[in-house]
Amino acid sequence: MREGEVIARLRRIATSPEARGLLDDVAVLGGLVVTHDTIAEGVHFLSSDPAGSVGWKLVAVNLSDLAAKGASPMAALLSLTITSSGKWEVDFLSGIEAACESYGLPLIGGDTIALPDGAPRVLGLTAIGKAGKHVPDRAGGKAGDHLWLIGTIGEAAAGLAQLRKDRHASGPLVEIYRRPVPLLTAGHAVAPQANAMMDVSDGLLLDAKRMAEASRCTLRIDLDTLPLSAAFIEAQGDDLKSRLFAATGGDDYALLAALPPHADPSTLSLPEGTTIERIGTLESGPPTVRLISEGKPVALPERLGFEHSHDQHRGSSAPPVAHRH
Amino acid sequence: MREGEVIARLRRIATSPEARGLLDDVAVLGGLVVTHDTIAEGVHFLSSDPAGSVGWKLVAVNLSDLAAKGASPMAALLSLTITSSGKWEVDFLSGIEAACESYGLPLIGGDTIALPDGAPRVLGLTAIGKAGKHVPDRAGGKAGDHLWLIGTIGEAAAGLAQLRKDRHASGPLVEIYRRPVPLLTAGHAVAPQANAMMDVSDGLLLDAKRMAEASRCTLRIDLDTLPLSAAFIEAQGDDLKSRLFAATGGDDYALLAALPPHADPSTLSLPEGTTIERIGTLESGPPTVRLISEGKPVALPERLGFEHSHDQHRGSSAPPVAHRH
Repeated sequence: MREGEVIARLRRIATSPEARGLLDDVAVLGGLVVTHDTIAEGVHFLSSDPAGSVGWKLVAVNLSDLAAKGASPMAALLSLTITSSGKWEVDFLSGIEAACESYGLPLIGGDTIALPDGAPRVLGLTAIGKAGKHVPDRAGGKAGDHLWLIGTIGEAAAGLAQLRKDRHASGPLVEIYRRPVPLLTAGHAVAPQANAMMDVSDGLLLDAKRMAEASRCTLRIDLDTLPLSAAFIEAQGDDLKSRLFAATGGDDYALLAALPPHADPSTLSLPEGTTIERIGTLESGPPTVRLISEGKPVALPERLGFEHSHDQHRGSSAPPVAHRH
Repeated sequence: MREGEVIARLRRIATSPEARGLLDDVAVLGGLVVTHDTIAEGVHFLSSDPAGSVGWKLVAVNLSDLAAKGASPMAALLSLTITSSGKWEVDFLSGIEAACESYGLPLIGGDTIALPDGAPRVLGLTAIGKAGKHVPDRAGGKAGDHLWLIGTIGEAAAGLAQLRKDRHASGPLVEIYRRPVPLLTAGHAVAPQANAMMDVSDGLLLDAKRMAEASRCTLRIDLDTLPLSAAFIEAQGDDLKSRLFAATGGDDYALLAALPPHADPSTLSLPEGTTIERIGTLESGPPTVRLISEGKPVALPERLGFEHSHDQHRGSSAPPVAHRH
């Protein structure tokens, strides 16, 4: 028995329309968008990661789910475990506080429990947002839609690669890995026009495949159009291999949106400096991703991103993963 | 550094009025009551507890928080960890499902993550309820109020004591320990009249002390009035010692309410068979609990209930504890 069976069991329980079949990043309850992410030491973050950055990231990944639905932050509840001296937890809370203040997310409750000695920390956050008039899910994409990417990809994975080589590495890529920025304002601006939208947390290709499956379309992505930052290119280069690295790296917290072909994102009031790029098209066809580069098909890599499976991310050297049901 | 310092840090972050100073069981957000409880293997439940009963209990303890605020269940988000084969988790979900169905609580989302091998399971639930017109907190009790207990106490602690002697013990007390019943209908009926209300989860005396501190009153409790069930008396007897055992045992999920002296709970439409008993009075005086029995003062026991502290509940033989911030 594996996770798939557990998830299948969950889906049979969560049958109300608010649950969105557990196939979206969030639940929608009346005028609210509600999401919960849990992270564990040795799975989603490294024991050596600064505690403050773990706190920041827990808030940011939840806010990224709100951003992908065009929702505005209202409140959060924190599930905190305390191990040993409590010093790590106080630093962790400084990161929580910084992120909550930065994005106007009041912490209103939660639970604090002690764990047995030596147990990995498990930290959770429930974020509640105010829904806009339209809350795009993953399933609304239509053949003919244009596929847009808001934000850049690959930088966090490149930062993690630097940390794997040298746990004391620093610089802009490490900073982006540790302190992702949820694209709340951009998400809020794009959501009213989006037929489908989701955040790119587990890898562009994996998340695009999820949108393809939910929307029952083929998502064709032109790798040459992927927006790569100067810092990424300096670290990883700018060839097909590095583009596939960026497209499968994960931890990006960019937004992936299917917009009708007539939509013109340049008319949206996005924050200055927001990267928004058309990276492909939704087409009739099997629910998968097709890649092209220089006009020619490129085979899908075997690994599209961080899938949640038992064997992949055990132990403290495991990569960050994030799977939402 | 200890948990106290971590909680103090949390309180400095959670300053919005919705947080209720993190001193209540819940947060109140618009017309919603929101609560989150997390439980860990070896701390709040035993590895030998049936997985289905752990799932039931996680739902029930959250619903008990809603009951204490007179709120009606709307939706829940589950934070689930998966270890080893997933079989335990499927059984656990059957308990979640049974409780959600019993109390009309749709599961609408959450997160599922894997844990490293050997890590204790950590399970969380966010419950969202619809608030009534009045959401009683712990702080509204007034000198002169009568103190009422809805439900019985001591049975769960007596059941746990049986399990400690024999992990295969069974019977009504073990059943009550494993499958507590949240008093939703009773809480809904009492809330409009209550100056203060909370659930009794960590032990009557400890929770009463919390109400005394929040309401800045002395809570005088007459131990002779405590409602004890026949099953409890059969197992533990009916003397001062057994009454103090019941009043400090915890895991009761009864409701403790401060009602104005003119309130007459017999006029409320409580479910048939609901035990409701006046157990004391709120008085001007220091914020603590005073006990009497047979008209004479009884010294407060050293241990009022399950306080959340590192040393108390480490290891798999630790008692269930529950601390909400």
